[in-house]
Amino acid sequence: MEFKDYFPVWDQLTAEQKKKLSEHIICRTAKKGDVIHSGDSDCLGLLLIRKGQLRAFILSDEGREITIYRLLDMDICLFSASCMMHSIQFEITIEAEKDTDFWIIPADVYKEIMAQSAPLANYTNEIMAARFSEVMWLIEQILWKSFDKRLARFLLDESSLEGSSVLKITHETIGNHLGSAREVVTRMLRYFQNEGIVKLSRGKIEILSPHRLESLCSDL
Amino acid sequence: MEFKDYFPVWDQLTAEQKKKLSEHIICRTAKKGDVIHSGDSDCLGLLLIRKGQLRAFILSDEGREITIYRLLDMDICLFSASCMMHSIQFEITIEAEKDTDFWIIPADVYKEIMAQSAPLANYTNEIMAARFSEVMWLIEQILWKSFDKRLARFLLDESSLEGSSVLKITHETIGNHLGSAREVVTRMLRYFQNEGIVKLSRGKIEILSPHRLESLCSDL
Repeated sequence: MEFKDYFPVWDQLTAEQKKKLSEHIICRTAKKGDVIHSGDSDCLGLLLIRKGQLRAFILSDEGREITIYRLLDMDICLFSASCMMHSIQFEITIEAEKDTDFWIIPADVYKEIMAQSAPLANYTNEIMAARFSEVMWLIEQILWKSFDKRLARFLLDESSLEGSSVLKITHETIGNHLGSAREVVTRMLRYFQNEGIVKLSRGKIEILSPHRLESLCSDL
Repeated sequence: MEFKDYFPVWDQLTAEQKKKLSEHIICRTAKKGDVIHSGDSDCLGLLLIRKGQLRAFILSDEGREITIYRLLDMDICLFSASCMMHSIQFEITIEAEKDTDFWIIPADVYKEIMAQSAPLANYTNEIMAARFSEVMWLIEQILWKSFDKRLARFLLDESSLEGSSVLKITHETIGNHLGSAREVVTRMLRYFQNEGIVKLSRGKIEILSPHRLESLCSDL
């Protein structure tokens, strides 16, 4: 599979636009833990994930984090190219959660093609609307869902991403995903353990009852 | 001033696209307090504000609210036309905060023109990115700013919107803007009053020291 198989509106671009893209894309690899883009660095460009997993998060002045969205195979990240649009007025950090192969599309190249191409501009709109929906979901979670529900949802999502009921993740990392302090995570996980929902051991969380996690985070 | 003076990319549309828009826009008036669009209703269309003030907010299952953004003269609202894009997966309510004149652009008309017009699609991208930035700011506020700072910022913004240091607003309404309970608002306002920052009276809040509100909400 090549770039064009990963780029959804490829067939709707002109020959010249395809040529321009092909000539300028950069193929990259990141190791798990690498920070690919941070808020105050240069305008890196758009990221198209070939294989792997990236995490986009924001950082407070005090170093607290919250995960905004994940990028998996074939996903595209716009906000690492904030110079592309005047109206992107926030800073995001992107790090690799797994070893990841991806392409960088330079912001000026993408912007130039998008200015001419209604299909590319409309596709960009759809990506942004999808991210917007994720962020609106996140606001509702932060404001109106209790922490037990948010943690239950996180453990289930993580288990599905990893394809395993045993998660190798620290309490601090979970806190960084959910925008919470480590102590709050530990307290709730111990409660889950007492209830027989999970089993905790050093650096690991085993999900014993996905069913009970599901009923915790459902809205019933 | 006519529709074309309010619609930023008008000059970049074709004659046919202009004709189509002109034939389908609907001119409307809302009274203060009117709900113009609610999450589960039909796909109303895009709103372009001629004169007035609208508030876009989300509602929890329990009836709690938080303001997402305000729409003032010449602003455009995309999210009242969620059927326009598959990826808009959240529900927003829009109500008039002042008597408001606005145009409705039917979603199917806008979508059809945007599919052909790179300028309109790029303009739509900029609007969405601007709203996205506001929502990211809101997340940072909710997660990392203490309530006194958020309330101070709100009072200053409100005073600037109204052009007055006396705000006619209830504590409950402030709570609905900030996603907080009325009691929390009242407690903090009384603290501000004890500090000589505001003066409270029935249905009114007078700002005595905008300077101290500014220093409260600054990041210093």
